[in-house]
Amino acid sequence: MNNWINGNTDSNNIVLSSRVRIARNLDKVPFPHKLSEDESKDVISKVQDGFFKAIKDKESFGLISLDEISKDEVQYYVEKHVISKKLSENKNGAFILNKDETLSIMINEEDHLRIQSITSGLNIKEAYDEANKIDDFLEQNLNYGFDEEIGYVTACPTNLGTGLRASAMLHLPAITLNNEMNGVLKALTQMGMTIRGIYGEGSKAEGNIYQVSNQITLGISEEEIIRNLQGTVSQIVNQEIKTRELVNNKFKYELEDKIFRSLAILKNSRLLSIEEGLELLSNVRLGVEMGIIENITQKFLNELLVDCQPSSLKRILCKDLSNNEINFQRAKLVRERFN
Amino acid sequence: MNNWINGNTDSNNIVLSSRVRIARNLDKVPFPHKLSEDESKDVISKVQDGFFKAIKDKESFGLISLDEISKDEVQYYVEKHVISKKLSENKNGAFILNKDETLSIMINEEDHLRIQSITSGLNIKEAYDEANKIDDFLEQNLNYGFDEEIGYVTACPTNLGTGLRASAMLHLPAITLNNEMNGVLKALTQMGMTIRGIYGEGSKAEGNIYQVSNQITLGISEEEIIRNLQGTVSQIVNQEIKTRELVNNKFKYELEDKIFRSLAILKNSRLLSIEEGLELLSNVRLGVEMGIIENITQKFLNELLVDCQPSSLKRILCKDLSNNEINFQRAKLVRERFN
Repeated sequence: MNNWINGNTDSNNIVLSSRVRIARNLDKVPFPHKLSEDESKDVISKVQDGFFKAIKDKESFGLISLDEISKDEVQYYVEKHVISKKLSENKNGAFILNKDETLSIMINEEDHLRIQSITSGLNIKEAYDEANKIDDFLEQNLNYGFDEEIGYVTACPTNLGTGLRASAMLHLPAITLNNEMNGVLKALTQMGMTIRGIYGEGSKAEGNIYQVSNQITLGISEEEIIRNLQGTVSQIVNQEIKTRELVNNKFKYELEDKIFRSLAILKNSRLLSIEEGLELLSNVRLGVEMGIIENITQKFLNELLVDCQPSSLKRILCKDLSNNEINFQRAKLVRERFN
Repeated sequence: MNNWINGNTDSNNIVLSSRVRIARNLDKVPFPHKLSEDESKDVISKVQDGFFKAIKDKESFGLISLDEISKDEVQYYVEKHVISKKLSENKNGAFILNKDETLSIMINEEDHLRIQSITSGLNIKEAYDEANKIDDFLEQNLNYGFDEEIGYVTACPTNLGTGLRASAMLHLPAITLNNEMNGVLKALTQMGMTIRGIYGEGSKAEGNIYQVSNQITLGISEEEIIRNLQGTVSQIVNQEIKTRELVNNKFKYELEDKIFRSLAILKNSRLLSIEEGLELLSNVRLGVEMGIIENITQKFLNELLVDCQPSSLKRILCKDLSNNEINFQRAKLVRERFN
């Protein structure tokens, strides 16, 4: 699998990444929010032992305990979509991560185990297969909570059944601009899916980047979930492409104006908020995807999308920053990258 | 005198130009708005004959009749501040202009004669002296309407007395930004002066460019008018400089951000309205005047200030343009000039 940020791939137009995560819990162990520090550490040890016993390619993986790294370091993994916001809030949490940062096993998130696989472009099936392999390795040495009737036991009932959540991250500026998002959301809801902002539940769709994911995990097979989502995302991609053509036919100069101004501001601003930065990056991304801007790669834009996030920025600069300073430093970083 | 737009001069910071105009009327001839076409032409002939008989440097001057040039050509002279809007509206009007476009004699404006002298920087006295010379030449062969009590007779009572209006064009972004303009206007009114937008009466202060001029022409000597205005403009310039320092101390990064973004947009936009264009040019001018932007001259900015006006633009492109096209062509012209 390709790292979604800097993996070289041709097919990462519109769909930035595909992700699958599987929720699992250890049998007869209380859910993470009921565990003491010691009990939490016990879960981590069990998972760690079980995983590393089973896996062959041991040196590709490492365990990171959240209490051993700085808060910004933790947030940096969130900003890269390597771990969830939920995990980042539990100092008794940990995660196992591969070198490419495409596979992660979150420990003591909402469930004991959240196996996540993330790759670039529209490759939900591939992400699912890889997550499945990890799941199989883990199951060799761990006893999962499982019920014949309801499937895998999870802390939240919305994850019961397969415990599977698949999602794709999409760049939908034209659908957004053309006010088609409500229609998309309505259609998705009817199909048991939903659409959210770039950082999942409750987050805004900053920079016109959205996550489409399945809502239903019960009474449906894993293969169906994957197939449905893959099909639905393809449809949204087609709608976005058609809307782009429409916008380009009707407002060619307005569109070019917006794109070239955005690029110019990114190259020249002295203060840049995260919201504006993401909006401008979205416009430039649109220009790149439509062939209006040349010599800028998706990889470059993905890296910038992550690196201009607050914690990534602090990590790169190796220092804490006030709100004013961060907008100054963000502008500086973005300027230097572009020039 | 230096042409205010492209004359090379060092002292054109903040004060773009100084202008003096003298209103005169032929004795016993009705005011222009009461004249038929033939009578108007008669006035033009009289002025033309009288002027060219008196002036030595004949080949430096030429007469332009408004009915002989296109509407855009006429407007182009207005946009360059060579003639007034009022004159441009009278197809029976004409003007004598020197090669440098620093001296013009408008014929059949509100008054039969409006002698105008315009130069770069803060040089009101010089402009006055030059206008005075032209006035003397004209008076050799023309009989002016004059009353011992009220002075020179003019069509509008606000010009009675000296018939002299002196003005300076100033770039006041900091005073505007810092909401000090109302205070300036109030102080000026008390001194018998006023401040208006770039194209005089009723025009907005687009691009933070203002005209300060005397209001009172009666019961005050010409020299006093000139001295008062020169002093007042110097004070406003000082206030602008102080306010710039204040803004720069308090909002250094915000200011630089605004300036560099403006330059970037001018270099890259695909659609540019006149209002936005002037606003951005003002920000860049501020950057140049404050030494934040290098390698851009006042001359370059002055030329662009005029050339991005609607009629100048049409004249440069030699074609009529719709409103949409004009914003496209303005963006193109500005881009090409900057790059």
